[in-house]
Amino acid sequence: MRLSRSFLPTLKETPSDAQIPSHRLMLRAGLIRQTASGIYAWLPAGLRVLRNISQIVREEQDRIGAQEVLMPTLQSAELWKRSGRYDAYGPEMLRIQDRHERDLLYGPTNEEMITDLLGQSVKSYRELPQMLYHIQWKFRDEVRPRFGVMRGREFLMKDAYSFDASYDAAVDTYRRMMLAYLRTFQRLGVRAVPMVADTGPIGGDLSHEFLILAPTGESGVFYDGALESKDWLSDPIDVDDSASLAGFFNTLTSYYAATDEKHDETAWAAVPEEKRREGRGIEVGHIFYFGTKYTKSMDISVTGPDGALLYPEMGSYGIGVSRLVGAIIEASHDDGGIVWPESVAPFRAAILNLKVGDAECDALCERLYDAGDEQFLYDDRTDRAGAKFADADLMGHPWQMIVGPRGAKTGTVELKRRATGERFELPAEEALAKVLGR
Amino acid sequence: MRLSRSFLPTLKETPSDAQIPSHRLMLRAGLIRQTASGIYAWLPAGLRVLRNISQIVREEQDRIGAQEVLMPTLQSAELWKRSGRYDAYGPEMLRIQDRHERDLLYGPTNEEMITDLLGQSVKSYRELPQMLYHIQWKFRDEVRPRFGVMRGREFLMKDAYSFDASYDAAVDTYRRMMLAYLRTFQRLGVRAVPMVADTGPIGGDLSHEFLILAPTGESGVFYDGALESKDWLSDPIDVDDSASLAGFFNTLTSYYAATDEKHDETAWAAVPEEKRREGRGIEVGHIFYFGTKYTKSMDISVTGPDGALLYPEMGSYGIGVSRLVGAIIEASHDDGGIVWPESVAPFRAAILNLKVGDAECDALCERLYDAGDEQFLYDDRTDRAGAKFADADLMGHPWQMIVGPRGAKTGTVELKRRATGERFELPAEEALAKVLGR
Repeated sequence: MRLSRSFLPTLKETPSDAQIPSHRLMLRAGLIRQTASGIYAWLPAGLRVLRNISQIVREEQDRIGAQEVLMPTLQSAELWKRSGRYDAYGPEMLRIQDRHERDLLYGPTNEEMITDLLGQSVKSYRELPQMLYHIQWKFRDEVRPRFGVMRGREFLMKDAYSFDASYDAAVDTYRRMMLAYLRTFQRLGVRAVPMVADTGPIGGDLSHEFLILAPTGESGVFYDGALESKDWLSDPIDVDDSASLAGFFNTLTSYYAATDEKHDETAWAAVPEEKRREGRGIEVGHIFYFGTKYTKSMDISVTGPDGALLYPEMGSYGIGVSRLVGAIIEASHDDGGIVWPESVAPFRAAILNLKVGDAECDALCERLYDAGDEQFLYDDRTDRAGAKFADADLMGHPWQMIVGPRGAKTGTVELKRRATGERFELPAEEALAKVLGR
Repeated sequence: MRLSRSFLPTLKETPSDAQIPSHRLMLRAGLIRQTASGIYAWLPAGLRVLRNISQIVREEQDRIGAQEVLMPTLQSAELWKRSGRYDAYGPEMLRIQDRHERDLLYGPTNEEMITDLLGQSVKSYRELPQMLYHIQWKFRDEVRPRFGVMRGREFLMKDAYSFDASYDAAVDTYRRMMLAYLRTFQRLGVRAVPMVADTGPIGGDLSHEFLILAPTGESGVFYDGALESKDWLSDPIDVDDSASLAGFFNTLTSYYAATDEKHDETAWAAVPEEKRREGRGIEVGHIFYFGTKYTKSMDISVTGPDGALLYPEMGSYGIGVSRLVGAIIEASHDDGGIVWPESVAPFRAAILNLKVGDAECDALCERLYDAGDEQFLYDDRTDRAGAKFADADLMGHPWQMIVGPRGAKTGTVELKRRATGERFELPAEEALAKVLGR
């Protein structure tokens, strides 16, 4: 994308109403604009990040056999009356009446709808397990929206739902999803540590929230540093094998990890001192087994192996996709701006032409731009160099390819890696190879 | 995807409330399920079609320099009061109050919001032109939703908006978009003919709707058959050159094409008789130049070349993405079911294993499945052959790869092309090459 023709409006001033770094930086870097309280429009660079995150989430859901669907944003109140949640859900549910005065609502979550959809088609235990997910906009009418997309009202979420024929199978599914989450967050370039969460009246140990470490996090977190070093992408866990899943789960949960709400000083004292990590965390995912709560209340059953009806065992699994954009920035920024992990960056590199109009500079930049296949943002504006450096740092591209008249004469590019500030003087082809990871 | 583990529920019975073929077939082929009046959930196969269509629309928008954004579904009523449309818009607008009794609405379109967003950032004519689009769910509270996704309430639409510094530049943009639409529909495997549409009080000839020909179309259409034969993808029109765009536009609009509302018998009589085409059409796109209507009413101006303020000239350009799924089926089906164009089909081919459990059949099917890289649906159910043939026809995969015990012994596949019914007996590798277009 050529910056001179793009809708990537950066701001020099810090917006006064933005209290945390991600909110300020998302506005300043031109990722979002507020259109109503807690509601945002995503501009081209922001949408690219949102889509990169969605795609990684999707690939890791597909990899464990979950199937993508797309449920609508508006739901009938009737569905929620069947589960008994319509009256129980508080003022965060946006209730709507249509022109015929029928009650609708903007879905804050989809347990009822997916249970109903499954029940319409699946009649036998032989058609289980089923794991279905969608990535769709939700609405929660927060009383005081703030922190930009971190606590907005209209937000993008991946929510998955599983249906199993037995408790044991549901446990396997839960563990499989936990692994998918660890892989997802690792690919997003952040560490998210799973912590035991409340299961409410259902009990058991099958509820975890995933927290990204960042100073502005809403919860205090305590965890064993051993959890930081694991590479989940190369771990040879067989997700089709119960014993392999159990080994993975038992090892993982043997390490201490808790939010301040659940913190246990005695267990914490048993963690070797050099391994103790304390900080703050932002919740970006939550996985939850809740058994037959919805299948029973909505009376959705299937024929079991013995011919008798059984209620499928369910779990639900959320990832806050739009919230992640903010959370990743909270975890990865500096005084100059955003520092994007490569996997989610809107552009892999910016090309900074320091002398637009100089034939050699222009020619070299065009050559680099062509090689980037739309992965590069070309700063072809006539602005001074300082403004270009500042905008590139602010927008957080993993690489900057700096082209000035001296280098252009010899076909040399100055390469800057945003995360470390390292600089390399390289012939154009070598710079491209480095940036494109060839 | 393996059918035995998929959520692709087909129906043998014809749903009684579905009046037109696409509605019946989308329900029967397991593409959608209704969740409330005029509101649908998209199941895995339906979502794949929706996404294939969106991607083609996106690529052709990007190709002419439009930039993708994503505006929220809910909008503030304040925005619409600024343009004067809040009170003018009828009961199809879904009006909502949040917990603080602030007026919101579910966006039926986005002229106000995009104009406001542009005005916040673009201050000079030098930053024009801008073309911005998004693919987002909209809501129109139809009094009597029907025909499935063809006249639903929550629907997916691509809407683009252009801002130019002069009328002449806006005309170029309009023509560029018209070409993008012709290319888009051609890639979707359908013929959509542009017809002059009402411009309302603005006048001029810069409003066209695009209609797909299908017997169930809502409008009668009359057009010159010369419009059917053009290949827009290979036409060497230079979209950066006004003269080239004018040539394209003038040639195109010199051929007769009109809906019954605009039909002119005198002009029609001048079309050579053998070229006259009459039928019915479904509207799937609409492009519209409306000048300074919104920039003036919302007072969004930029500095012009002479230093004086000017109001950008606007156009808007819609494609009904979810409607297209139905419209394509209306245009392409037979008694057996859907006949998907290859570019939008949820799966490129189905592999029909006629004897699941037979070692040779299973091995050959697995080999084919592995080669398909998730583009094939493998019917590995233990059902009888007849049910598999019927489901494959119903779901409309462009190709069927039929594997029975006799063929499996010699590594032979019976290939059926859905659109023509042609059958080929081929060694597995040749069958794969044909299906994958290698």
